[in-house]
Amino acid sequence: MKMSMRMASLLATVSFGVLVAGQAWSAESLQDVMKRRGLTEKDVLAASKTYTPTGKRDEFIAFSSGGQSGQVIIYGIPSMRILKYVAVFTPEPWQGYGFDDESKRVLKEGSMVDGREITFGDTHHPAISETNGEYDGQFLFINDKNTPRIAVIDLKDFETKQIVRNPILKSEHGGTFVSPNTDYIIEAAQYAAPLEDNFVPLEQFNEKYRGAVTYWKFNRAKGRVEPENSFSIELPPYSQDLSDFGKGPSDGFSFTNSFCAERYVGGIERGRPPFEAGCSAKDTDFLHVVNWKKAEELFKAGKTKKINGHAVIDMATAAKEGVLVLIPEPKSPHGVDVTPDGKQIVVAGKLDTHASVYSFEKIQAAIKAGKFSGKDEYGIPIIAMADALAKQVEIGLGPLHTQFDSKPCVAYTSVYVDSQVAKWDYCEGKILDKMSVHYNIGHLMAMEGDSTKPAGKYVVALNKLAIDRFNPVGPLHPQNHQLIDASNDKMQLLYDMPLPLGEPHYAVAIAADKLKPHIRYPHGTDSRTEEKHPAAVRAGSEHTDTKPGKVEVFGTVIRSHITPEIIEVTEGDEVSIHLTNLERAQDETHGFAVSKHNVNLSLEPGKTASATFKANKAGVYPYYCTEFCSALHLEMQGYLLVKPANYKSTGVKAKEGVSYSKADYDARVKGNIDTQAVIDSVVGYITSVNFKDFPQAVALVEDATDQLGFAKAAKEKSEEFAKKQDWHNAALWAEQWFQYQVKTADIGLRAKTYLEQNGAKKVQ
Amino acid sequence: MKMSMRMASLLATVSFGVLVAGQAWSAESLQDVMKRRGLTEKDVLAASKTYTPTGKRDEFIAFSSGGQSGQVIIYGIPSMRILKYVAVFTPEPWQGYGFDDESKRVLKEGSMVDGREITFGDTHHPAISETNGEYDGQFLFINDKNTPRIAVIDLKDFETKQIVRNPILKSEHGGTFVSPNTDYIIEAAQYAAPLEDNFVPLEQFNEKYRGAVTYWKFNRAKGRVEPENSFSIELPPYSQDLSDFGKGPSDGFSFTNSFCAERYVGGIERGRPPFEAGCSAKDTDFLHVVNWKKAEELFKAGKTKKINGHAVIDMATAAKEGVLVLIPEPKSPHGVDVTPDGKQIVVAGKLDTHASVYSFEKIQAAIKAGKFSGKDEYGIPIIAMADALAKQVEIGLGPLHTQFDSKPCVAYTSVYVDSQVAKWDYCEGKILDKMSVHYNIGHLMAMEGDSTKPAGKYVVALNKLAIDRFNPVGPLHPQNHQLIDASNDKMQLLYDMPLPLGEPHYAVAIAADKLKPHIRYPHGTDSRTEEKHPAAVRAGSEHTDTKPGKVEVFGTVIRSHITPEIIEVTEGDEVSIHLTNLERAQDETHGFAVSKHNVNLSLEPGKTASATFKANKAGVYPYYCTEFCSALHLEMQGYLLVKPANYKSTGVKAKEGVSYSKADYDARVKGNIDTQAVIDSVVGYITSVNFKDFPQAVALVEDATDQLGFAKAAKEKSEEFAKKQDWHNAALWAEQWFQYQVKTADIGLRAKTYLEQNGAKKVQ
Repeated sequence: MKMSMRMASLLATVSFGVLVAGQAWSAESLQDVMKRRGLTEKDVLAASKTYTPTGKRDEFIAFSSGGQSGQVIIYGIPSMRILKYVAVFTPEPWQGYGFDDESKRVLKEGSMVDGREITFGDTHHPAISETNGEYDGQFLFINDKNTPRIAVIDLKDFETKQIVRNPILKSEHGGTFVSPNTDYIIEAAQYAAPLEDNFVPLEQFNEKYRGAVTYWKFNRAKGRVEPENSFSIELPPYSQDLSDFGKGPSDGFSFTNSFCAERYVGGIERGRPPFEAGCSAKDTDFLHVVNWKKAEELFKAGKTKKINGHAVIDMATAAKEGVLVLIPEPKSPHGVDVTPDGKQIVVAGKLDTHASVYSFEKIQAAIKAGKFSGKDEYGIPIIAMADALAKQVEIGLGPLHTQFDSKPCVAYTSVYVDSQVAKWDYCEGKILDKMSVHYNIGHLMAMEGDSTKPAGKYVVALNKLAIDRFNPVGPLHPQNHQLIDASNDKMQLLYDMPLPLGEPHYAVAIAADKLKPHIRYPHGTDSRTEEKHPAAVRAGSEHTDTKPGKVEVFGTVIRSHITPEIIEVTEGDEVSIHLTNLERAQDETHGFAVSKHNVNLSLEPGKTASATFKANKAGVYPYYCTEFCSALHLEMQGYLLVKPANYKSTGVKAKEGVSYSKADYDARVKGNIDTQAVIDSVVGYITSVNFKDFPQAVALVEDATDQLGFAKAAKEKSEEFAKKQDWHNAALWAEQWFQYQVKTADIGLRAKTYLEQNGAKKVQ
Repeated sequence: MKMSMRMASLLATVSFGVLVAGQAWSAESLQDVMKRRGLTEKDVLAASKTYTPTGKRDEFIAFSSGGQSGQVIIYGIPSMRILKYVAVFTPEPWQGYGFDDESKRVLKEGSMVDGREITFGDTHHPAISETNGEYDGQFLFINDKNTPRIAVIDLKDFETKQIVRNPILKSEHGGTFVSPNTDYIIEAAQYAAPLEDNFVPLEQFNEKYRGAVTYWKFNRAKGRVEPENSFSIELPPYSQDLSDFGKGPSDGFSFTNSFCAERYVGGIERGRPPFEAGCSAKDTDFLHVVNWKKAEELFKAGKTKKINGHAVIDMATAAKEGVLVLIPEPKSPHGVDVTPDGKQIVVAGKLDTHASVYSFEKIQAAIKAGKFSGKDEYGIPIIAMADALAKQVEIGLGPLHTQFDSKPCVAYTSVYVDSQVAKWDYCEGKILDKMSVHYNIGHLMAMEGDSTKPAGKYVVALNKLAIDRFNPVGPLHPQNHQLIDASNDKMQLLYDMPLPLGEPHYAVAIAADKLKPHIRYPHGTDSRTEEKHPAAVRAGSEHTDTKPGKVEVFGTVIRSHITPEIIEVTEGDEVSIHLTNLERAQDETHGFAVSKHNVNLSLEPGKTASATFKANKAGVYPYYCTEFCSALHLEMQGYLLVKPANYKSTGVKAKEGVSYSKADYDARVKGNIDTQAVIDSVVGYITSVNFKDFPQAVALVEDATDQLGFAKAAKEKSEEFAKKQDWHNAALWAEQWFQYQVKTADIGLRAKTYLEQNGAKKVQ
């Protein structure tokens, strides 16, 4: 640790502890802490750029693929705190995903393959929906490399709404990317295979194995992909890789690169050099340039063939109609990235030291002039590299992926082998800065860095290896996303963020203020269809329908009980439990799990979700709320009683564990009156300040008012029983009245603390 | 934002940017950043206490339950960065957990219940193994509330090794907690139910529903729980809750509290007040005091009955033999926490405003004197509260859980309704400090705070609601763990940490230097049995066994190819693929996924893992490495070919995609010679400095040397083919030689950067 002497001497006198009179919250000065923790001045400056105090918000929100975890990871920038894992292709019980009937239906859209259930995906490239080439924050799309599929996530509630299986691919990679108005979503193949599902021997690789690129039609109003309005273009058996859509002048085109244009087939076990040797032998592969607007016309004109029921434009048609041309690109490239102005396309060749900048204008000129250097073996015209290239810039060993800065002509490229980020000028063709990252960066992410209006400020390096960066947690390491301050000429490393689950491949970041998620659902919403759930009920109308072999429960949850609290079924019955969360308060989620039945629901405010299962064994199965929703959360319980077939009731009346007297009732009522005084004093404080100026406080007051209403209803029941001198029930309902008071006090105190901490002022 | 004027004026002159001459990494001074981001001086001081620069380590490692995610969450303190999610009860593909044969066997130990597969758990209370009451960092235990089970995680590799189902409970909560030498692990019931698995109607709740506490015997040498040496004690149908083991003077005893000692059965749907009312009506519940050493003697003497094959000491025996006594405790308590010296027991009653401190000495005196206030309905002796209580301290609304500081007599208690942490003195019985947290804190965690030697320094508040603390991500919010500086008299809030997946309940933190995880496995290890995998092979001995109906592949993975690269089977075959990762380099994990077959392996260095599946449909299925393991990771691929039954080979020889000439070979060799010059210069640098003083660099050099050895072998193959004038294969092997050179350069450059950044010095 090194500290400049001048700084040190200044800090010695400028202890924060001394400065803030009367605050005993630290015996240490900033200098003490720096010395104790080995921090440099640079570290403290970096800390000040990422540290986000309680209640403050992040500037950007990143959506990262979760790799083989099958999920999407969401984190804030610059704090680099992970806010949510969204389950997409893999069941995840906290979210109820794959554990409630509604999400099971979404999962099943894409998980049943040849009679086998696929319970994971290999997510690679998230894309945020765009309007005029700018991120609009409405939808997120993500692909699965392993079982070719794409998923639609609605950013209103961050839930997966749809999974669509690719009908012709056996492996994919280059998706998802969206056209500038999100008309189409690209999904491009990876490893070539027959487009039909049948077996074809590898010796017919050149003749019968194929690549393809699929254009999924997205209906924004419905928020769903329309498979029937989607099509694919058959491609040669080059291993297609990443893709990007054109924009501005290049709108209407898309670009997909490839590796292994050698069409090499390995077989190290039979003495052949492995794929890695044969697939990287040539100095160039092929960039596929697709005129997708023309392809769309062909599709609409029916100039397609059907493969597995899906419309495919074959290579001959694509070549003949000018839909597809190839351009050589150096060597085993990964990223293909269209510049924000849409005029150039940057290709990074992993096994080349350059980034290659192609000119869309030149490409168009060559196409118009019919100036081709020849055709590939499949009849696709090839434009000579020299006729398309604007420039090549020496970037380093293993350039991979390029994102763009808010400053014109400035790009960032990840450099895998060198473990560096290169900042460079693609107009002038010169390197501006380089910095080392830790270690082996794959993709990188600039803020809105592949939109038409990149936001600058930060770059995140998605490093594949962490090695020695974090405390060791066994042979399987986290990944390391490093936050870089990109607001200056020189890049500055700000933060190392471990990724604790999954191996992210690609990430996109949007300005946080473009996201407007809901905080609750309208009462009784099926969140997956986004419609009113047919089994939603309101408080007081809960009921159970029992038919032979089938019991259907229409229930509710609210702090702190589940209605019903006892569910009786017969062994062998199919049981459906539909629960509606009656809460309106933000973050007041309830869960629902049934002992040994693999049921877990996540019921956010307003949501209705269902669990259907076979009650296959007689017995006693407690159920409960799995969320710590209130002080009485453990008491939010019930019993599923599965009776043997032909069971005869004992007819015995249950003995109460405890009986309550008038004295108990009186004591409880007295306690409640005391509690009401506390509530009144909190209410007094709140109404004495300008709480209406604080939306958070207003929401809490609404919630407290709800609870107080419930308290009143319980009080009335209690008094009714007291009138009948049924002291047992009077005391119990008085207890329930008290429980609602506790909830009221809980929320009221939260509101009071919030107002005090946020500078609420006295009103007249 | 408020900044003291003196600080502001000083910062204006003390810009970091000015101080560090010649560094252009920031145009902003600390003052600029504070102003731009709205940070106070207090914020910057907090930032300096949590910010952990690249490569620096955390002081403590926290293990947090993942709630309904079925996982365990691991994070560092004070950086609050999540390092790993460890899959326990829920399949998780990134870790291959539930996707390789080895982990499926672990999962199946606990997931098959009544013919149903349980794919999630509700994890609640992690416990670190102890030696003499101090955390030893060897094992972690965790429970499942919903399908009563406990799991053993080995902290050598952070993997789940064993899952043991509780044979008598239908619901649990109060586990896991360990005895001071980890002889036993506690798992206590939650909602009462018959201990047998049969149906018993609720009207027999008092008579036939029961609680229980299970003492699982742990064999430390084997690292496994021994069900046959474990036993339970039958308890009354009070809802047992949290537990703790005695230590020091109270060693040999354990404590389990309860709520709903009212034995109330709800039924709001039939007009009865709900559970929450009836379960919180009385002012006291019961603390169960168990003499487990005496219980162990009874168990060993065979004084048990068998329920579902498991040894249970019934209540009558427990009462008669002095194994079990009850003490009233106020009201619906959650935490029961033994002080570090083992002399007192702190109980926090959620619906009481006090923490109640019980004296173990008094309890023992009462037991010895036979001074009981009576018996409960089940014949268990009750000690009067006054005869056991040392003191009660007013803590606030909803005290929940207590952890201990390194300073004697100092404790921290979470206060749910008040949303506060209270710091108090349990000897003097006075409050020392209180601070607000956000919001509704459940448990809290002090560093090693429930061991005999708490480490002080930090407290983490496990808040159940986040509400407005983070950028919104839809109706389902993250939780909020808040880091508190506890080193001073006044607590200081340092950091808000969102929990992105699962709802943690309880967490434990250990000094990071007590953990010594492995960085790789010995060659060919089955990580779940921790033994040599019978299907492990070394490089060169890969092979495939084909029998009718069954194909077994014994393969390997290494940068950047899978051996074999082609697997041919027949439709209907059962296929087992065993793969050994030959890497020795730290963090060099490979994955393995097969298109559409739900196979994903995580192969850390040295590990062998297997995937067995039915090849149920003829077709072409690419497989590949799912980890971005090297620049050629995408080329780390192969094909599973599932041929139709009775398929006859075409006999056609495959056409090569590209043929290579002598010129190609010569060019490649020339390139390789140039590359070797680069490698030599890197080697020259490394050997010119004191790299042997840097273990990280030594490891990288070893890895690079391995790769260079592979390069040499490929070079020899290439030269062999060249001698035979087989230029095609000579060129391809020369390419493979180059690929190993690239890997050598990659690692060498990482070592060089590391040495440069860590101050390596020239040697003579």
